[in-house]
Amino acid sequence: MQMTDLIVKKRDGGALTDEEINFMIQGYTRGEIPDYQMSAMCMAILLRGMDDRETLAMTMAMMHSGETLDLSPIRGVKADKHSTGGVGDKTSLVLCPMVAAAGVKIAKMSGRGLGHTGGTIDKLESFPGFSTAISEETFFDNVNRIGIAIMGQTADLVPADKKIYALRDVTGTVPSIPLIVSSIMSKKLASGADVIVLDVKCGDGAFMKTEDDARELARGLTRIGRLAGRKCAAVITDMDQPLGFAVGNAVEVKEALAVLRGEQEGDLLELCLTLGGCMLAEGGLAAGIEDARERLLQTIRDGSALRKLAEMVEAQGGDSAAVYDPSLLPDAAFKLEVPSLKGGYVGRIHAEDVGLVSMHLGGGRATKESSIDLSVGVVLKKKVGDYVEAGESLGTVHASSEEKGREAVELLRNCFEFSDEPVERPSFIKDIIR
Amino acid sequence: MQMTDLIVKKRDGGALTDEEINFMIQGYTRGEIPDYQMSAMCMAILLRGMDDRETLAMTMAMMHSGETLDLSPIRGVKADKHSTGGVGDKTSLVLCPMVAAAGVKIAKMSGRGLGHTGGTIDKLESFPGFSTAISEETFFDNVNRIGIAIMGQTADLVPADKKIYALRDVTGTVPSIPLIVSSIMSKKLASGADVIVLDVKCGDGAFMKTEDDARELARGLTRIGRLAGRKCAAVITDMDQPLGFAVGNAVEVKEALAVLRGEQEGDLLELCLTLGGCMLAEGGLAAGIEDARERLLQTIRDGSALRKLAEMVEAQGGDSAAVYDPSLLPDAAFKLEVPSLKGGYVGRIHAEDVGLVSMHLGGGRATKESSIDLSVGVVLKKKVGDYVEAGESLGTVHASSEEKGREAVELLRNCFEFSDEPVERPSFIKDIIR
Repeated sequence: MQMTDLIVKKRDGGALTDEEINFMIQGYTRGEIPDYQMSAMCMAILLRGMDDRETLAMTMAMMHSGETLDLSPIRGVKADKHSTGGVGDKTSLVLCPMVAAAGVKIAKMSGRGLGHTGGTIDKLESFPGFSTAISEETFFDNVNRIGIAIMGQTADLVPADKKIYALRDVTGTVPSIPLIVSSIMSKKLASGADVIVLDVKCGDGAFMKTEDDARELARGLTRIGRLAGRKCAAVITDMDQPLGFAVGNAVEVKEALAVLRGEQEGDLLELCLTLGGCMLAEGGLAAGIEDARERLLQTIRDGSALRKLAEMVEAQGGDSAAVYDPSLLPDAAFKLEVPSLKGGYVGRIHAEDVGLVSMHLGGGRATKESSIDLSVGVVLKKKVGDYVEAGESLGTVHASSEEKGREAVELLRNCFEFSDEPVERPSFIKDIIR
Repeated sequence: MQMTDLIVKKRDGGALTDEEINFMIQGYTRGEIPDYQMSAMCMAILLRGMDDRETLAMTMAMMHSGETLDLSPIRGVKADKHSTGGVGDKTSLVLCPMVAAAGVKIAKMSGRGLGHTGGTIDKLESFPGFSTAISEETFFDNVNRIGIAIMGQTADLVPADKKIYALRDVTGTVPSIPLIVSSIMSKKLASGADVIVLDVKCGDGAFMKTEDDARELARGLTRIGRLAGRKCAAVITDMDQPLGFAVGNAVEVKEALAVLRGEQEGDLLELCLTLGGCMLAEGGLAAGIEDARERLLQTIRDGSALRKLAEMVEAQGGDSAAVYDPSLLPDAAFKLEVPSLKGGYVGRIHAEDVGLVSMHLGGGRATKESSIDLSVGVVLKKKVGDYVEAGESLGTVHASSEEKGREAVELLRNCFEFSDEPVERPSFIKDIIR
């Protein structure tokens, strides 16, 4: 078999066989197929497409390019969640304890943040002593015992994706549904969960710019997940502004704790109830999404979700006192308000730019090796649709120095767009694909 | 400027600016743009296309990637010819002396053969002592004095094409009209001729499989040539069988000499009269193609074409006696007939396979470093449309050993397809694009 022949076949609109796809993924992962052939193939796939059978074969071949996690030692329904990436996305911090309290098993691999997007592991490290560098044995034990554990992603999970994604990034071949689906689903399948729910963002700041594109991706992801024998659902959400109010690390944990204490409603809670509802419904732990939402709200009302988070923090070496007393979490030395220069309705908040403000403050990584300051970040006071008086604060900047803080005030101000006319609050959950 | 942005632009169907194309070609030639980006770009160009302005910019950028030949020291109309590659293509050996005898200046760069296609330089080296390794000064002097010289291609002519072609060859990005046009025309423009005629082959054994594809390529080549300020014409010819009868080196020279002596008519003479006719007409040396053909036939009748070849051979160190006495040319020790196993009409002769028979005999190079035997090859006796009795000879194999010869007999037999019904002789010249 020759890679050139496979490129020609796809270039001319043909469908690759499972055997051909295996040859390509194995050969590329092993370094036997050079980058210049794989990038030509990615461009041909982007422009010619792949059918479901091909996308499934590619997903499975990538999944088997490295180690896979066997979650069978864990009793019960194991669920996992994936987001296509967002700013201020502290969903896992709220969702995982809630669904674990409702009986779903959460054995989650998570990553660190890079660039303007944060990572769940960084956020959780705001709890003093908390570590995700736990052994596989402890990970499994903890999930069996308390229903939840979060572990750093191991190095040899889906090496094919690491290599292909790095290549796509520099060859203009990122926005291809089959390539995105195989990248996301190969990792989710390798992580071993029975139930996979996906948060597909759409909007200017997201991967998928339009709701139609997001729906196409969501349908592709769930179809491939089901063809691979897993239960799947996807939620399409708006990303024309950051999720919730806080962007940073400790500030996001504090917001998550507020939601878990039942003190904050809005988009973040809504997203967690919808994703969690899908998890419980798909996993057979609730009669339907409505029933599931009610059970999840109950875990907030009775404090069981907050307790579940405390148990996890404790089990992974952290100080669970901070779960009940957020003042024990890292706190920035300087807090500066961001007074609006003009009055009007907030028309848009550029999410990606807000993420860059947090990065500028030291809360995000410019490169994989950068160290970050967990205490800094941004807490918005106004969101899209809100009316703001001139001089009223748009949010608070949490900074390690007054100079950095003052710079961030200017930057954050530029993230807001105003309108003289009232702005309709966007519907946040656009669709649920089951 | 970032190559990734240019890839994205082309991927989405945009047109690259001249500046962007220059950046890309210069960057790739210098090694600043990696292969994996260029191959993704080539695939995007293949699937999205390029307009004439882009193709011209790419052609000019490639032409300027290395040295160019300035033919201004040569007086008169300088003409050049290019063929998209064929088996048994000894056209230059007949055409160049004919048109030189008719007053056109031929200052030709030529190459050696590789794989199943032969090279003009190898064929000419059948004349004992003949060399194309002449200085630029001798080259120019000879053209001014006798009207014709042939030089080996210098190493630094269009380095961009060498690099891009090698990449396209292994990434499934060869059959793209703008990429083929820029590859061919950058070299022809760099070679400096005023008049460029192109022989575009079509058929199963050729680059372009259909007449429509060949016509599209021919139109693209001539348009870009004219946009670059040169006179251009293209001839579309059938390649469902080898050109003429001989395939090899000395055997092809012998056939060319027979044509120049006026002893052989058929496709080869027809092609040379048509290409030469275009050269004279485009160069303003004849009133039209018909007038030009008559003048070219006259160079055969009066022996001036044959004498022109003898002058060139002599001027480049060769023994011109062989021009008049072909028995002085290399001759194989073994000549084996190829009796047909069945009777019928010849339906097809797989040209590429005949080229491989010659290569098997030692007349072609497997790699650039291989040495070749100038004496070996194949001389067909039957062509498409001819009736053959069982046992009648299809051709003669010229071999260096009886064993090689016997193997070649079997191989050559398999190049023929037969039909019980009469087969129409294909029209050889399909179209002339001026």
